[in-house]
Amino acid sequence: AIAAAAARMLGPPQTQAQPLKGRRVLITAGPTREAIDPVRYIANRSSGKQGFAIAAAAQAAGAEVTLISGPVDLDDPPGVTVAHVESARQMLAAVEAALPSDIAIFTAAVADWRVAHAGAQKLKKTEAGVPPLQLIENPDILATISNLRDERPPLVIGFAAETEHLIGNAKAKFARKGCDWMIANDVSPGTGVMGGDRNTVHLLTRGEDGEIRTESFPVMTKEEVAAMLIERIISALPGPAA
Amino acid sequence: AIAAAAARMLGPPQTQAQPLKGRRVLITAGPTREAIDPVRYIANRSSGKQGFAIAAAAQAAGAEVTLISGPVDLDDPPGVTVAHVESARQMLAAVEAALPSDIAIFTAAVADWRVAHAGAQKLKKTEAGVPPLQLIENPDILATISNLRDERPPLVIGFAAETEHLIGNAKAKFARKGCDWMIANDVSPGTGVMGGDRNTVHLLTRGEDGEIRTESFPVMTKEEVAAMLIERIISALPGPAA
Repeated sequence: AIAAAAARMLGPPQTQAQPLKGRRVLITAGPTREAIDPVRYIANRSSGKQGFAIAAAAQAAGAEVTLISGPVDLDDPPGVTVAHVESARQMLAAVEAALPSDIAIFTAAVADWRVAHAGAQKLKKTEAGVPPLQLIENPDILATISNLRDERPPLVIGFAAETEHLIGNAKAKFARKGCDWMIANDVSPGTGVMGGDRNTVHLLTRGEDGEIRTESFPVMTKEEVAAMLIERIISALPGPAA
Repeated sequence: AIAAAAARMLGPPQTQAQPLKGRRVLITAGPTREAIDPVRYIANRSSGKQGFAIAAAAQAAGAEVTLISGPVDLDDPPGVTVAHVESARQMLAAVEAALPSDIAIFTAAVADWRVAHAGAQKLKKTEAGVPPLQLIENPDILATISNLRDERPPLVIGFAAETEHLIGNAKAKFARKGCDWMIANDVSPGTGVMGGDRNTVHLLTRGEDGEIRTESFPVMTKEEVAAMLIERIISALPGPAA
């Protein structure tokens, strides 16, 4: 009885089911910030909550989790290795440094563009008017990792945040990126998904015929979405750890 | 003895010195966010800490404080009326709605520019390349309020955050804006001021001859800067409440 009480106080025993034990899981989360000058930047409204929830769920399932996060207001999940970055280029470098990995889940809202020539000093208002803000394309982290020759993780999962034509845009992105699964979610202002605690997602996979299959879920908490995704991953990875 | 103990437990008595009692103080703080599309925005690294510290100090001195803040990760100061806004235009509208005021202190790092045509939907990568990001000038809140005909607060204080030529840039800004005092601070990345807890400030005022006077302070916590500024305000405002 004393041992049982002690076990309850100490939490779940280490012998509980850890279906991802020995698996390395890499997760990106949050927004990126792209500097305009030393004080200004371009960012987005991603809170990082969905990626942090997936990291916590993967860790609870026994995985060795590396979470690479842009600037967020969340505490690092216990037991997870967290790398904090700002820009898309820093995030890509951190992802590459975290390879090899068995599973890679790219939830971060990576800036598609950055400022071509970030100012070394704060841009000033001038008589000449507004300074030009020339944008250039950022590296595509999901496509880059999906197309690696040597260290491509066996399961690469992308997220597609869209404000219109959700399934159509997500299918086009899925076809283009080279990842294995894609989660599509609607981040229109009215949904409250960006920054909020709930998410309505669609899981895109490929059938044996190569056709894209779409499975739609009801509105769930971001923790429930994480649990669903980890369950699907466990089902899809029956083999031994890499 | 019991009464004294009770008084200690209840905190400072209401009869303590409240030199700003009856004064209305308006303070802006934090960054603004300027939408690019429903998920992306332009922002800056202001934490809002200096403005929140000034609001707390003014409230402690008995003032009726309205704090208008951009997106920050700070708790609303107790006893202060707080309006939360995002964009420069929203901040200006909230400032105008908070008038009349005896003292206005503009610590916010207001975006000088916004995107001319914010997208109603998330901008997409296209074959054509990077979408244009045309900027236009935002309203200048400090200059607007400093130049009001009817409801100009009797004491208007601006902040100038600079990364180079600190005093020169701040003097030029002071001369141009029409405010009564200006606080200049160096926000170069090496200083740790943006987002940090300390600040090194210079107080610009005008002598009776109209010449700009600069008083430089040692590095202080943002609470110490707030206390210094409130002391100066108390000294400068001997008359009855408006």
